[in-house]
Formats: sequence, structure tokens, C-alpha cells
Amino acid sequence: MRERHFDQELKHLNEKLFEMARLVEEAIGRAVKALVDREPKIAEEVIRADTTINFLEIEIDELCLKLLALQQPLAVDLRFIASALKINNDLERIGDQAVNIAERTLDLLKQPLLKPLIDIPRMATLAQKMVKDSLDAFVNRDTKLARDVCERDDEVDDLNDQIFRELLTYMMQDPKTISRAVDLILVGRHLERIADLATNICEDVVYLVDGKMIKHHVEDEKD
Amino acid sequence: MRERHFDQELKHLNEKLFEMARLVEEAIGRAVKALVDREPKIAEEVIRADTTINFLEIEIDELCLKLLALQQPLAVDLRFIASALKINNDLERIGDQAVNIAERTLDLLKQPLLKPLIDIPRMATLAQKMVKDSLDAFVNRDTKLARDVCERDDEVDDLNDQIFRELLTYMMQDPKTISRAVDLILVGRHLERIADLATNICEDVVYLVDGKMIKHHVEDEKD
Repeated sequence: MRERHFDQELKHLNEKLFEMARLVEEAIGRAVKALVDREPKIAEEVIRADTTINFLEIEIDELCLKLLALQQPLAVDLRFIASALKINNDLERIGDQAVNIAERTLDLLKQPLLKPLIDIPRMATLAQKMVKDSLDAFVNRDTKLARDVCERDDEVDDLNDQIFRELLTYMMQDPKTISRAVDLILVGRHLERIADLATNICEDVVYLVDGKMIKHHVEDEKD
Repeated sequence: MRERHFDQELKHLNEKLFEMARLVEEAIGRAVKALVDREPKIAEEVIRADTTINFLEIEIDELCLKLLALQQPLAVDLRFIASALKINNDLERIGDQAVNIAERTLDLLKQPLLKPLIDIPRMATLAQKMVKDSLDAFVNRDTKLARDVCERDDEVDDLNDQIFRELLTYMMQDPKTISRAVDLILVGRHLERIADLATNICEDVVYLVDGKMIKHHVEDEKD
């Protein structure tokens, strides 16, 4: 009887984490949409919607504590719940990065378009997918998918380097572009950070399932 | 008997967290020293020393899991250990930011000094102290100190804005300074991020002790 109750609560935890992931994915998508379509209202909505994400984080934390307080969860469940606490935190931080992008966007929209945005929306799509897949990997304990997400992180880093270098040349050629270029560089870094956080989640998944530490790239020293 | 064992383990956890905090404080101090004294060797040491911090994070995680696995920790201990898991993660991320500063430093030291650095070392000293105090606040459940740290975050943000604006003028006046100025802007942001992470820790402390949510600035809507 107690076990069935525990399983129900665990299922509830998974659902809440999915909801959290969905909200932050949406926040990323909308923040970048606001930038590309030059729609300040959408950016403002992203900033406002962060409150919901923040409250959901606290709700999930409380749920984890409740599960931990149930008499003697199995070691495997204990690890899962401890990971959920961390992943919850990572998701909330991804939401914060989306807010940062929305804030930069509001700043950028006060000035004319510097250049057509191509790499930034591409980075955003990649980062969103990484967030979605990291949560799927966690809930399904799918280490194959988790490792795949970790590899995609390099692609995002490369795109970010490319954006950075391109914007540097803009600034060099015309100082009037500097403040907009710096804003776009920061948007790139926020997206990179989102990909890093999704990678963190996946490293936790591999550790949780295989007991193998790929965190901090012990497996892959070149990074 | 069991309780005494639990208390010992809890004491051990506190000690390890202090060690972690000491290592990351040191990393911040050394990364900025490398930048100010133009010593690439020190920056390289900071990057190498991060491995120790990463392994300590895992050790502390395992310690938390062990404590959670002991039969029925009291609700108050449960909350403390769950917070320790998060704070451990925050400390490791502070270490990552110190590595980021060290990497920027290696880049900056390839070029001549852009300007004498005054605000960046000031920011670093403030951020280091915030990290130290956040851990003290946690271990001693000192909400007064925790709230004090949260307030200091604004000072760091203001310094960062000041650095940002000053460097923008450098770039506008002389495009040759752009890549160095961007590197210094990023150092400023890494320090700001460290202060944010210390603030996160303190918000967790207030929630842990008072059950009051100052996280996400619910108390202070203007921020």
C-alpha cells in the first residue's frame, strides 16, 4: 500500500518536472521569437511568465522533500529524487537565461536591426531540443539519449564562437554597432549557457543510471 | 547511538562544504590575481585546480545521499541535507566561473594592458566575501547574515554596470581595444554571476530557516 502511494507520488514528480521543462522550453522559444520578430510584448510576457516557473520550482522541491520523508525510500529512488532536486534547479536557471534573453531583446528593439539573425535562432532551436531531450533522458533513464545531448553541446558552442567572431568584425568596422553587437554576443552566451545546463542534466542522468561520471568531462579530457 | 553517528556525519558534511567554499574562494582570488598581476601561470593553476573542486562536489553529493539513506532523518535535517545538495552544486558552479575568468585572463595576457584594473579587483573581493559569508550563514543557519549577503548583490551589480559602460566608451573611441574590452566585460559578468550564486545560497538559507521565500525577490519586487 505504501509502495503504491510512493509510486504515485513519483509519477506526480515526473509530471511536474515535464511541466517545468515545457515552460522553460517555451520561454526560450518565445524570447528568441521576440528578438527575431521584433515584438517587445512577447519579451515582456516571457519576463512575467518567469514567476510561474519560480513557483513551480518550489512546488517540485517540496514534492521531493515529501518523497524523501516517506519511510526509507530504496537507494535507487533516493538517488533519483536527489537528482530531481538538482535538475529542478537547472530547469529554473534555464528559465532565468530565457529572461536574460528577453531583457537583452527589449534593449535591442530600441535600436534598428544590426543584421538578419540566422545563427541565433538556430542555436535557440538546438538548445530547446536539448532541454526537452534531457528531461526525456532523465525520466526514462535513457543514457543513450543523455550522451547524445552531451555531444550536441559542442555544436552549440561552435555556433556561439561563430556568432562572437562575426559580431567582433561588425564592431571593428563600425563603432556605432558596438552596443547592439555586445547585446547579441550576450544573447549567444545565454543560449550557450542553456545548452550547458541541459548538458549538466544529462551528465547527472548518466551518473544516476550507470554510476559513471561523465560530468566535468572525465571521460573526454580534450574538452 | 544512531543519532550520534548521524550528528557526526552531519558535522563531516559541514566540514566538507567549508572546504569546498574555501577552494572556490581561493580560485576566484587567484583568477583575478592572475589578471591583475599579469601572471598566466596562476591562471593555468586555477584551471587545473578545478578538478579537485569537481571531485569534491561528487564526494559531498555522496555524503548527502548517505545521510538521506540513514533511517528517517528528522524533517529539519532532511531540509538541511536537501539544501546542502543544492549549495554544493552552486559552489561547484562558482568554481566554473573562476575557471572562466582564468580562461579570459589567458586571452587578455596575450595583449597589452587596456587600462589599470580597479573595479574588477573590487568586485572580486566583494564576491569572494559573499561566497564565504553565504556558507557561514548556511552552516550557522544565520538568516541575518544571509539577508545581508543578498543586499550586497546590488553593489556588485552596480559595479558591473559601471565596468560595462566604461568599457563601451573605450571601444567606441578606439576599435583596437574591442576584443580586450569584450574580454573584460565578460570577466565582469563572471564575477556578477558568482555574486548571484552566493545570493542563491543565501536565499536558500532564509527559506530553510524561516520557511520564507525571498528567492526570486518575492519580498522585493523592484529588483
